[in-house]
Amino acid sequence: MFVKDLLQQKGSGVHTIRPNDTVYRALELMAEKDVGALVVVEGDRVVGMFTERDYARKVILKGKNSRSITVGDLMVREVLYLNPSDQIEHCMALMTEKHLRHLPVLEEGKLVGLISIGDVVKSIIRHQEFTIQELERYITGA
Amino acid sequence: MFVKDLLQQKGSGVHTIRPNDTVYRALELMAEKDVGALVVVEGDRVVGMFTERDYARKVILKGKNSRSITVGDLMVREVLYLNPSDQIEHCMALMTEKHLRHLPVLEEGKLVGLISIGDVVKSIIRHQEFTIQELERYITGA
Repeated sequence: MFVKDLLQQKGSGVHTIRPNDTVYRALELMAEKDVGALVVVEGDRVVGMFTERDYARKVILKGKNSRSITVGDLMVREVLYLNPSDQIEHCMALMTEKHLRHLPVLEEGKLVGLISIGDVVKSIIRHQEFTIQELERYITGA
Repeated sequence: MFVKDLLQQKGSGVHTIRPNDTVYRALELMAEKDVGALVVVEGDRVVGMFTERDYARKVILKGKNSRSITVGDLMVREVLYLNPSDQIEHCMALMTEKHLRHLPVLEEGKLVGLISIGDVVKSIIRHQEFTIQELERYITGA
């Protein structure tokens, strides 16, 4: 199973924000779309990731204010990403090792989707059901 | 594979907070322990869950202040939980259906652990490797 299969199941919609937008605007957008992460873009280019965790860790605890601080001030700039041709196992390993819950998918530098750890678990449930059926068929010779 | 196996791998440590603590204190504790969720307890009893998402959605967007508002004001009170004897598949289904990333584990009403969606993915990686080895052994007859 590949990242592109996962995108086909969930769709390629991604919610983005710009570095100059305020953190408050990012929170509004995350609430509106019911997501926990936004991809930060400048024009066509992915320049960072902004998540609920960045908000919980880097604003009030550092004495900052979400209405004056921008997404660009807090975002994670070293963005790890997936290719559509990557295997789900690679995605799982990356999320586990780097403690990430969201990975953007890039195809030739262009943003084509976002995979969350929830998407991965959902796909595993589907895939396990399928694999069990296949194995039963193999073993019983049906 | 069962929830109790997962707890054995990750340990049964759980970070808790009280309903009367401030949201600010909860954020400090989550940052200190590098976790995204706390179990809210009153004495021995689990009374709620508090996560980064509750903070991102229910404080500044609602015009509230993390230093005056308490965990009890924001926590989710209907806590879904796991038993140590539950299968991982049940845990995955619950997380997927209810959009939860953390589930406390209760044994006879007593808190004995917390399972995150990251723990689940980690255990799946381990389990898949094991299953593949077993199947190869079965098929090749080694």
